[in-house]
Amino acid sequence: MSDVQTVLRNVRPWGAAAADIRIADGAIVAVDPHRPGDDVLAGDPATRFIDGRGLLALPGFVNAHAHLDKSWWGRPWVSYGGVATTQGRIEHERAHRGELGIPSPQSTAALLRALVSQGATAFRSHVDVDLGVGLDGIGVVRDAVASLGVPVALEIVAFPQDGVLRRPGVLDLLDQAAAAGAEHIGGLDPASIDRDPVGQLDALFDIAVRRGVGIDIHLHDGGELGAFEYELIIERTLATGLAGRVNVAHGFAIGEVAPARQQGLIERMREAGVSITTVAPINAPRLPLDALRAAGVPVGLGTDGIRDLWGPFGDGDPLRLAARLAQLAGARRDEELTAAVRLATSDAAAFVGRAVHDLVVGSPADIVLVDAENVPEALVAAPPRELVLVGGVEFA
Amino acid sequence: MSDVQTVLRNVRPWGAAAADIRIADGAIVAVDPHRPGDDVLAGDPATRFIDGRGLLALPGFVNAHAHLDKSWWGRPWVSYGGVATTQGRIEHERAHRGELGIPSPQSTAALLRALVSQGATAFRSHVDVDLGVGLDGIGVVRDAVASLGVPVALEIVAFPQDGVLRRPGVLDLLDQAAAAGAEHIGGLDPASIDRDPVGQLDALFDIAVRRGVGIDIHLHDGGELGAFEYELIIERTLATGLAGRVNVAHGFAIGEVAPARQQGLIERMREAGVSITTVAPINAPRLPLDALRAAGVPVGLGTDGIRDLWGPFGDGDPLRLAARLAQLAGARRDEELTAAVRLATSDAAAFVGRAVHDLVVGSPADIVLVDAENVPEALVAAPPRELVLVGGVEFA
Repeated sequence: MSDVQTVLRNVRPWGAAAADIRIADGAIVAVDPHRPGDDVLAGDPATRFIDGRGLLALPGFVNAHAHLDKSWWGRPWVSYGGVATTQGRIEHERAHRGELGIPSPQSTAALLRALVSQGATAFRSHVDVDLGVGLDGIGVVRDAVASLGVPVALEIVAFPQDGVLRRPGVLDLLDQAAAAGAEHIGGLDPASIDRDPVGQLDALFDIAVRRGVGIDIHLHDGGELGAFEYELIIERTLATGLAGRVNVAHGFAIGEVAPARQQGLIERMREAGVSITTVAPINAPRLPLDALRAAGVPVGLGTDGIRDLWGPFGDGDPLRLAARLAQLAGARRDEELTAAVRLATSDAAAFVGRAVHDLVVGSPADIVLVDAENVPEALVAAPPRELVLVGGVEFA
Repeated sequence: MSDVQTVLRNVRPWGAAAADIRIADGAIVAVDPHRPGDDVLAGDPATRFIDGRGLLALPGFVNAHAHLDKSWWGRPWVSYGGVATTQGRIEHERAHRGELGIPSPQSTAALLRALVSQGATAFRSHVDVDLGVGLDGIGVVRDAVASLGVPVALEIVAFPQDGVLRRPGVLDLLDQAAAAGAEHIGGLDPASIDRDPVGQLDALFDIAVRRGVGIDIHLHDGGELGAFEYELIIERTLATGLAGRVNVAHGFAIGEVAPARQQGLIERMREAGVSITTVAPINAPRLPLDALRAAGVPVGLGTDGIRDLWGPFGDGDPLRLAARLAQLAGARRDEELTAAVRLATSDAAAFVGRAVHDLVVGSPADIVLVDAENVPEALVAAPPRELVLVGGVEFA
């Protein structure tokens, strides 16, 4: 344990009574009732004190589905072009990313700084891996995170945005990425993009088992086609023992099938240990988030891409994102609003490889302060972040 | 014309080249290419100069569907309760508004200040008129607007939130409100609430014709029921010659019926001069906004209620609201993003009784400055409002 500790004094964890949070070696080591008075400060020369001014404290936000490598954040405006289909956007991106220097160390770092300043402290980022850029994007993202000066958590998904089987050589790249330390390998619409759902999934699970990494698959395919791919993923997760290490991203299909079919899929996901991440899209089929959560299926929330060649939207504010998720679910009551913040913070620990990520002893000291009366108000008002601590270090 | 004029120097109207906007008597009297240099300022002692610093200039935002009377803005947090149906929320509001002093002069003024500081300069506000509060809310809203110190435009819709025919006496209240100067009378789900669509609509149109006011009807009723009510409204608009003075608010049904039926309704709306307002809800049937606009049906955008007994959401930022509208419509291209800002500003003049509301000669000088490269960036980033002029007067 380090000699110097930090105490974040007089904050209201989750809106509870004022507390003093003691931090050592990047982790929370005590959460005590707040003790006002100068005697506290005077008596402890080896401790650094931060005045929390009675602000509301939340855990750092977990961005469980980011694309940190492909933004043009910080550059002059880039007008959107391309055909409005998944394939059209893939082609548009591959045709124009070079002009923008994507994957760009500068844009990636600028975007990350914007995101962390808004309270995100842990990321699972998909990073394009394809025949054009190879594995370069992974290094760009890791370097950008390292440049932040605070211990932001990062898990990489080596993401075959341009397809897997249809692009010979990409499987090798995924294997190399996994061998080089990527925590997960990605996939993309095994049916509609690769035209071979069994083939893509078998190949991905083979790498995951051999290399001991997770799988995180973009699944836009809808209706029964997408539901069938859910089944293929679940079957392979059970067969390989990868429970807890397989995630479906987007996964619109489960919001489109009939209720009984949906409930069956949810049950099977729970059995297999398959999680799901959403970016709370306002223009896509609704996921049955309440039913998924009730069944014990982990649900993660992410920003998706921000200002990239897929579209210009996104500011990365995790409170506004959680509010959108809550609104999509029809949430109005305090406990529903608070649950949306939990989903985006403490409940998302596993999406970034953590056992605990909360305002409790033993958690990394990722703490966000806002001026709000309570958690529901923080959600609906998205007030400025007064302080962001990452591993106990102030981000500025 | 007043002796002292104001010149807002060096702004980029709609992102165009830097201009100087000259203002007299609250209106724009000239828009000239920006002339740098101190000689301009020195030569004109009767002119007040404001330095626009090259910022992007937009017209003030038009909030075409507000409920300024029913918010608890500025009060301690009010947890949501009540049954999640229209009728459940009506009952919940009537049961609890008294405890919160609603309609509250303080909350109404506080909400208005928050809205105007974010760039809204003209409002069409529904105001509850019922057997409990009578017409009191109208005075509360008018007084709050008058207290702002800037000439914010306001049109009142006397709104029978609790029903019309089912509450004997409410028709008299609407008639009194119209006689006393309310610009419009409202209605609410003639079928599902009053159980008598023809009866409610005939009564409303009778008042509107006798008093020379407009009609603005909340229509949540869905599918064919709502579409039938659209027809009843259109028929009566044609029969009474109230073209241009009748609006459907929400109007989800037109987003639910089959394409041919939808197109027929749009055509009939255009013929009859019936407009529509939306609050860009993320959890309701999508309106065919592009088809409505293409046909020439005026579409207005509003905040709906903000932090009231119907729900806790809403911060009133008109740029974020327009961005949500754009995202709902799948907008990505610059022209689509700009169109969403036009919809929320210059294209909405008629919703607040104006012939023109734009950065042009003859318009009221309602001008909002933001630090953005262009209009699309302003929409997706919603940067802070650097300056809000209302009728040429700075709001602070």
